[in-house]
Amino acid sequence: MPVTSPYPLVTIEHALNTILAHSPILGTEQVSLTRALGRVLAEDVIAPAAVPPFPAAAKDGYAVIAADKAGRRRIIGEQLAGRLSDLRVEPGTAVRITTGAALPKGADAVVMVEYTSERDGWVEIEKEVRAGDDVRPVGQDIEAGQRVLERGSTLGPAEVGLLAAVGLSAVQVHCQPRVAILSTGDELREPGQPLQPGQIYDANRFSLAAAVELAGGVPRSLGIALDSLDALQHALAKALAENDVVVTSGGVSMGKLDLLKPILEARGQVHFGRVIMKPGKPVTFATVDQKPIFALPGFPVSALVSFELFVRPALRQMQGDLDWPRPRLTVRLAHAVQHDAHRTEYQRARVYVEKGRFLAQITGAQGSGRLLSLVGANALLELPPGNGFLPADSEVTALLLQPIGM
Amino acid sequence: MPVTSPYPLVTIEHALNTILAHSPILGTEQVSLTRALGRVLAEDVIAPAAVPPFPAAAKDGYAVIAADKAGRRRIIGEQLAGRLSDLRVEPGTAVRITTGAALPKGADAVVMVEYTSERDGWVEIEKEVRAGDDVRPVGQDIEAGQRVLERGSTLGPAEVGLLAAVGLSAVQVHCQPRVAILSTGDELREPGQPLQPGQIYDANRFSLAAAVELAGGVPRSLGIALDSLDALQHALAKALAENDVVVTSGGVSMGKLDLLKPILEARGQVHFGRVIMKPGKPVTFATVDQKPIFALPGFPVSALVSFELFVRPALRQMQGDLDWPRPRLTVRLAHAVQHDAHRTEYQRARVYVEKGRFLAQITGAQGSGRLLSLVGANALLELPPGNGFLPADSEVTALLLQPIGM
Repeated sequence: MPVTSPYPLVTIEHALNTILAHSPILGTEQVSLTRALGRVLAEDVIAPAAVPPFPAAAKDGYAVIAADKAGRRRIIGEQLAGRLSDLRVEPGTAVRITTGAALPKGADAVVMVEYTSERDGWVEIEKEVRAGDDVRPVGQDIEAGQRVLERGSTLGPAEVGLLAAVGLSAVQVHCQPRVAILSTGDELREPGQPLQPGQIYDANRFSLAAAVELAGGVPRSLGIALDSLDALQHALAKALAENDVVVTSGGVSMGKLDLLKPILEARGQVHFGRVIMKPGKPVTFATVDQKPIFALPGFPVSALVSFELFVRPALRQMQGDLDWPRPRLTVRLAHAVQHDAHRTEYQRARVYVEKGRFLAQITGAQGSGRLLSLVGANALLELPPGNGFLPADSEVTALLLQPIGM
Repeated sequence: MPVTSPYPLVTIEHALNTILAHSPILGTEQVSLTRALGRVLAEDVIAPAAVPPFPAAAKDGYAVIAADKAGRRRIIGEQLAGRLSDLRVEPGTAVRITTGAALPKGADAVVMVEYTSERDGWVEIEKEVRAGDDVRPVGQDIEAGQRVLERGSTLGPAEVGLLAAVGLSAVQVHCQPRVAILSTGDELREPGQPLQPGQIYDANRFSLAAAVELAGGVPRSLGIALDSLDALQHALAKALAENDVVVTSGGVSMGKLDLLKPILEARGQVHFGRVIMKPGKPVTFATVDQKPIFALPGFPVSALVSFELFVRPALRQMQGDLDWPRPRLTVRLAHAVQHDAHRTEYQRARVYVEKGRFLAQITGAQGSGRLLSLVGANALLELPPGNGFLPADSEVTALLLQPIGM
């Protein structure tokens, strides 16, 4: 009788839903603005006061009364940004003012310095003036009580600026998942060391750590574990003790040396052990002590593609980002593509725009070990089962990993 | 006579070319793989050896001689990944093998365990076998001597994995620009402090620091400088002493309190002091001691948009990335847009795809202070001078800041 895996093949959708159901949103912590970039808000942010909080000059120039029309006005003083004065503009008078300064009492407009000339304490206004010209009214940018950012938003430069603008020096965000990363396999060697016959360099620990960082997690390398029950049990215990998530690679094929699944079964629950996809069929997902454990295949492309499809969503959800799915686009193949007839295959591609249409070009040979297929790729093409051949110009779905251009 | 700036208005193109001509590529340093994410390669990377370095099993199964065809073979031992053996496969024999293990001498194919059954030291091969089946030949992923990454590449997860795969534990990258960030203005107050009348919170130092970080630079906050010659001179000297680039915001309008330009003129050279654009017209660029100094406008949107157009390219070039331009796309306006008739205006927008066409929707009011216009924006629309009105469905150019989706 042929050997078959005891783990049923599950669909990609089932696998992802199972993972999300076991990836709880982490707690929150307060961080200062200078450490907030990339973090996910754990609270709605309400502006406690208006921005600007007072009517302010939008330009350098003169604060005037619009009803005075064009013509000469007597200068009664100056109002600089951040410096207060008791000046009051009366009909026929003006106050020099700089951008951002509070509009003095009595004034209802600002005239840009470019439309004026000043001499001997008088200023000539050389244009028609309307009430409100170049005045920033209270709340023009943000109203008091306005919700400026929503819980679940990822903080970029503009969001960080908004927090500062409403006066917050710190903000409540979700904790970042701490992710233990473990490579398994007797054949693996640390980069920088000489290879012995039969050995290869461990690439996954480094690529997965970088992928964890980009996904907002905190990678913690646990090194290489040899293919022995003892080594793996010890490494797993250490990984679970200090982290929220464990990601391993290697050692989940069908051979005698798949030691990981029995350990996971003994310590917790294996939710699935095979997925109908390529690459990534041996992806295994378990929980131990309620913590998600991803056992990814050892081939470098399989590891990164299955990270993208399964681990990244979990890490984003755990830090409170419920808007994690990648944009999907319908694109056309720039050339014919061979693909797996029985499993959904994710091929690496460059999506670009030509004559207003999205085209996709595969990034060379798509072997599971060929990391070069990810270099220059800005998308994963999702190729469902079929007859194994898609002619040029076929429409397929692309998951966008990077912006596309011409 | 009206007041006019002594600085001529220059075009955006002239401004950018001037900046790039004064933003020298920084030196190089060696970083370990665990710190390489996001850095820019300062050298081509040549694979010193092939990957895989030996013919290896692509699957768990049995190493056989293909010419033996289907049928029974005697098992003479096992070859595990990373463990060596002196096994030699002779006609009629087979060796158990795990994924990644070196193919034993004599064998020329691997049969997946799924297509076999083993009993009493014999294995039944249940399919046709061809030479090379499930064997990864030497150099399948990377050939010895192959250039796997080019100087100037930015390192993402796949690139970091490639470096590890070819055995490098460290890599030569360009230094990151250290960027001093200074806010200027008597009206500015630190977030977290109570506001006095006439004051507003400093947002730019925080948003610009985040933008510097995303652009690969190292932000160093120099706080708020008051509007005095002394304060600004002191702050500038400190900024120049320890950094490669200085970015200030505020204090570059036309008023009496533009103290910065005279200081820059005295200490170095002001290359331009005004640009024909909106927002960002007062952007000023100088060099002092060969170091680029950007004096950005104080309004928060003006500061971030001019950072995107002028500072980011400089920071990318300085760290060796010559492929910094954002992707540009032709998109159609989802609605009519009012814009500046005389200056190229950059409006913040969300670009999306609908029925195969790119559409752009402006993100609300486009005031220079309204940071909310950047929240949810994935593009800047570049609207050239014209009659100030673009009807719905007009074609415009979008600079993509983020991936677009449906």
